[in-house]
Amino acid sequence: MKIITAEEFAKKWNDRTEIDTNEAALDETVLEIIRTVREKKDAALYAYTEQFDGATLDDLLVPEEEFSEAEKIAAPELVTALKEAAENIRNYHSEQNEKSWMISQDKGILLGQKVTPIERVGAYIPGGKAAYPSTVLMTIIPAQIAGVEEITITTPPDKDGKVNPYVLLAAKLIGVERIYKVGGAQAIAALAYGTETIKRVDKIVGPGNAYVARAKKWVYGTVGIDMIAGPSEICVIADAEANPRYVAADLLSQAEHDESASAICVTTSKEQAVAIQKQVAEQTEKLERKEIIQASIETNGKIIIAKDLTEAANVSNKIAPEHLELMVEHPIELLPKIKHAGAIFLGNYSPEPLGDYFAGPNHTLPTSGTARFASGLGVYDFVTRSTIISYPQEAFVAASESIKTLATVEGLTAHANSIQVRKDEL
Amino acid sequence: MKIITAEEFAKKWNDRTEIDTNEAALDETVLEIIRTVREKKDAALYAYTEQFDGATLDDLLVPEEEFSEAEKIAAPELVTALKEAAENIRNYHSEQNEKSWMISQDKGILLGQKVTPIERVGAYIPGGKAAYPSTVLMTIIPAQIAGVEEITITTPPDKDGKVNPYVLLAAKLIGVERIYKVGGAQAIAALAYGTETIKRVDKIVGPGNAYVARAKKWVYGTVGIDMIAGPSEICVIADAEANPRYVAADLLSQAEHDESASAICVTTSKEQAVAIQKQVAEQTEKLERKEIIQASIETNGKIIIAKDLTEAANVSNKIAPEHLELMVEHPIELLPKIKHAGAIFLGNYSPEPLGDYFAGPNHTLPTSGTARFASGLGVYDFVTRSTIISYPQEAFVAASESIKTLATVEGLTAHANSIQVRKDEL
Repeated sequence: MKIITAEEFAKKWNDRTEIDTNEAALDETVLEIIRTVREKKDAALYAYTEQFDGATLDDLLVPEEEFSEAEKIAAPELVTALKEAAENIRNYHSEQNEKSWMISQDKGILLGQKVTPIERVGAYIPGGKAAYPSTVLMTIIPAQIAGVEEITITTPPDKDGKVNPYVLLAAKLIGVERIYKVGGAQAIAALAYGTETIKRVDKIVGPGNAYVARAKKWVYGTVGIDMIAGPSEICVIADAEANPRYVAADLLSQAEHDESASAICVTTSKEQAVAIQKQVAEQTEKLERKEIIQASIETNGKIIIAKDLTEAANVSNKIAPEHLELMVEHPIELLPKIKHAGAIFLGNYSPEPLGDYFAGPNHTLPTSGTARFASGLGVYDFVTRSTIISYPQEAFVAASESIKTLATVEGLTAHANSIQVRKDEL
Repeated sequence: MKIITAEEFAKKWNDRTEIDTNEAALDETVLEIIRTVREKKDAALYAYTEQFDGATLDDLLVPEEEFSEAEKIAAPELVTALKEAAENIRNYHSEQNEKSWMISQDKGILLGQKVTPIERVGAYIPGGKAAYPSTVLMTIIPAQIAGVEEITITTPPDKDGKVNPYVLLAAKLIGVERIYKVGGAQAIAALAYGTETIKRVDKIVGPGNAYVARAKKWVYGTVGIDMIAGPSEICVIADAEANPRYVAADLLSQAEHDESASAICVTTSKEQAVAIQKQVAEQTEKLERKEIIQASIETNGKIIIAKDLTEAANVSNKIAPEHLELMVEHPIELLPKIKHAGAIFLGNYSPEPLGDYFAGPNHTLPTSGTARFASGLGVYDFVTRSTIISYPQEAFVAASESIKTLATVEGLTAHANSIQVRKDEL
């Protein structure tokens, strides 16, 4: 793992990750899939599932038996862990619940904001080799708290046409049983436009591969989407007192996601940098996903030396990381200097996997520096806000000339007319 | 204006507006502009401004003299109206301000959500023949309330290289003086990627034509965007007692925006439908923008007859209109039945232009049925939310086995390692 200075980092950082506007080949494939699903509907889904997942399906919907099988094979400690996690996620997200409000002003004016749950939400859960029951909990519990009535899951099947049992287990645990065996861009198209079997939704959430991300970008506008997720990232700010074993282990926990994941440490101590570097090398050797980790650390890993914690915070603010750990003696004192990060972990005993799985805050977080403008998934993603205006006659009359002035200056004379017809009758 | 029944409407409604995924020619032009701006920066902006706006500029930045000239020509009642509107907008949006929060749980656990303003925002203000000072107030005041520090406006110049004076007046009134003379897709590219003169921003907001909307879709991900705006819409629910002159005037006020704007009335009374139809025809004749209005009413205008107010609300919920007027005797009683609408106007004296210009709630609202999943612009669009997790040792130990179980089942063993290295040292 390279060690560089904050100045060296600042010079290079201009080439931060940017969404490529020129992925012509990917777009062609994705658009072709979307068009085919819109046209041939279910037939297209069966065909693509055969082509991409190698599975010949009789039915897209996961049958009751597959849920029962999943419950049979699940170890009791897994069920317990999922239940605990679900409760923590529910508790945390309940705090995000928004209420409608109304305020009154002079002359009997009422103004307000009405909060309404989105009606139909589709959650995409990645499948294949990796199983993500935690993503089921993280994407769906906030929607349930918001009051979303219809929740649909799509997830790709394996070659035998089966869906990952842990995904089913997590879904059943929180009461979602409408799961369709479809993955990739075809799942996103089905959720956005609907087929004979899959009802179209109002918003699509959940992570996925490059095809899923690109398809979400294309259907955005027809439906809402949560975000376009990129590779996972961690930034750890460590002072001289931090435990280098912990820092290294947490960097590696993000590096194992995939080769393009990014693990960055910012430290105020040169000795610490060397100690972490050593721990990273040592621990990597013993880890199962060693090859992915080495590739990720080689390409994107770095340890940056900052002159003090303020500079360290500034470096982190430039990165705007998905996950940020403050492994410093007084993390709460550093917090006000942190501007943008998806999730912030304080102290030695709040490692990133605690947030991924258990503590309650969401693990669907903004990646690739998008924490500059985006937030993690939350209850706020599953509601719409309508503004409310109620003016009585007297208040209307008092406002009328100003409205006409503004409408006229903008050349919108029918707007002015809407005011004038009322004045004419008073 | 056609009169149809709710059943006829329901049958047709499946062909609701959908974002076209196949605008190849538009995309080609827009992507070419984005690529050129990224490569040639300012030089590209000068060239495109000459090509598209017919203006040869010496400087992209609006000089102090243009602001002074704008102040000179402005009528005092316009300045007063803008000031009143700005104050109302400020008052309303202040209610949307979000606070950071922190909760404590057993074993010393702290969980929280930190709200931080976005650092740099760019507002696109349409220009050309139409002047939109109200859009300046509506896009920028919420950003200011959120605490955004750097706000940039771009707006296209006219042939003489001048920016609309009312836009300058509104901007100066609320303290924004960094305005660049650039419009179209080239302005969006400049804000997203930066040039020598224009600093790149974190989020772009504001309405625009098809090129602007498409460019926003393309840069989404590199920067945040507010929404992709389509043509304007209004839906008026009117009972037998509503004043048909008012209903007609309000329908026409949306129809004048452009030929693709949509004005729909849902009424519980056949007599009312006929009276409104008559008023629409009569008032149209006297309006300046008669031709646009006729085209819009012809294509998208309709009066729908519902059997009662519940059915009327259901029709409106299907449309999910940008603007919804409840011109009924007891509008507040109908409100709970309304699910999705950008802005809701209650009663005879709350016409839509009151919201466009004056009352305080935002006029940048979700169009084309996107109110099913999106909300109008608000303070919430200008902040990011970071989650906070702080576990002390005891709480960590209690959670550790469940976290390892979940990580292991997902095959993420380096995640489990991050827990284990801590346990090893305890």
